[in-house]
Amino acid sequence: MFRSLPTAAAAAACLACALPAAAQFQKPEDAIKYRESVMFVMANHLGRIGAMVQGRVPYDAAVATQNAEIVATMSHLPWPAFAESTPGSGKGKASSKIWSDRAKFDEAARKMQDEVAKLVVAARTNSLDNVKSAFGSVGQACKGCHDNFRNQ
Amino acid sequence: MFRSLPTAAAAAACLACALPAAAQFQKPEDAIKYRESVMFVMANHLGRIGAMVQGRVPYDAAVATQNAEIVATMSHLPWPAFAESTPGSGKGKASSKIWSDRAKFDEAARKMQDEVAKLVVAARTNSLDNVKSAFGSVGQACKGCHDNFRNQ
Repeated sequence: MFRSLPTAAAAAACLACALPAAAQFQKPEDAIKYRESVMFVMANHLGRIGAMVQGRVPYDAAVATQNAEIVATMSHLPWPAFAESTPGSGKGKASSKIWSDRAKFDEAARKMQDEVAKLVVAARTNSLDNVKSAFGSVGQACKGCHDNFRNQ
Repeated sequence: MFRSLPTAAAAAACLACALPAAAQFQKPEDAIKYRESVMFVMANHLGRIGAMVQGRVPYDAAVATQNAEIVATMSHLPWPAFAESTPGSGKGKASSKIWSDRAKFDEAARKMQDEVAKLVVAARTNSLDNVKSAFGSVGQACKGCHDNFRNQ
C-alpha cells in the first residue's frame, strides 16, 4: 500500500497569502487543532531522525531523508493557523506573546523553516555526521521558539 | 515567512517497511493521535479544494495544486499508525474491522492514495472541471473506507 509520492511537495508558501485565515478555519478551535496536528506529525518525524542521531535505531540514510522531507513539508503549514489571536490555555499551548510580538514569532518560525531545509540537504548527503549537526540546529530553532512562545 | 519548499516531498512509501510500528510509536495512544492528526490535516486541505469545487471560494489553480500536493503527502502517512490493533472508541473512530479485515482496509487505503494522486494530476491541468471530477472520486474513496472502517 505504500507507494512513492507522485511528485514534489506542495509549497504552502502562498496559501497564507491566498486565503485569509478566517476562510481557512471556520472556528478558532479548528485553527488550534490544525496547528497542533501539524506540530504533532512534525515532531513524530523529527523524532524518527532523532532516534538515529542518538543511536537508538540504526542510521538509514534513505529513511532519514524521507523523514526530513516530511518535516520540511510540515514546517510550512502551521503558520496561517496562528493568524488570528487564538492563544491556547495551559502549559505547552500557544502563548499570547505570539500576537503581541508577532515579528519575533515570525522570525522564529522562519528560522525553524530554514534549519529544517538545511536538515533535508544534510540528510541527502547520506552522512550521519551532517545529519547530527543539522538536527542539532533544528532542535535549537524549535526550542528557541517554544521557550518564548509556548506557555511554560 | 512563507517560502517555497526546498524540494520533493518525502516518499513515505518505505517508512512502514523500514521500522516496525512499535518503533515508530511508543504508545498506542501516540499512534492514534498521529493518524488522527494526519487525517485532520488532510481533511483541511481537501476542504480547501472542496470550497473551490463547490464555488464557495474562487478557483485558483495554483492554490488547488498546492493543496492537492499536501493531501498527497498526507495520504501516505497514516497507515503505519494502524499497524497494531488499536481501534478507537466512539463514533467516527477506527473500527476493529480494520484489523479483522486488513486486506480490504489496505485496498481501500490504496484506492484513496491512487485517487489523490489523480487529483494532483488534475489540479496541474489548471482545469476546474478536471479538479471537480477528480475531487469527486477522492470523496468516494474517502467515504468508501469510512463507511466500512470507521465506527458509525
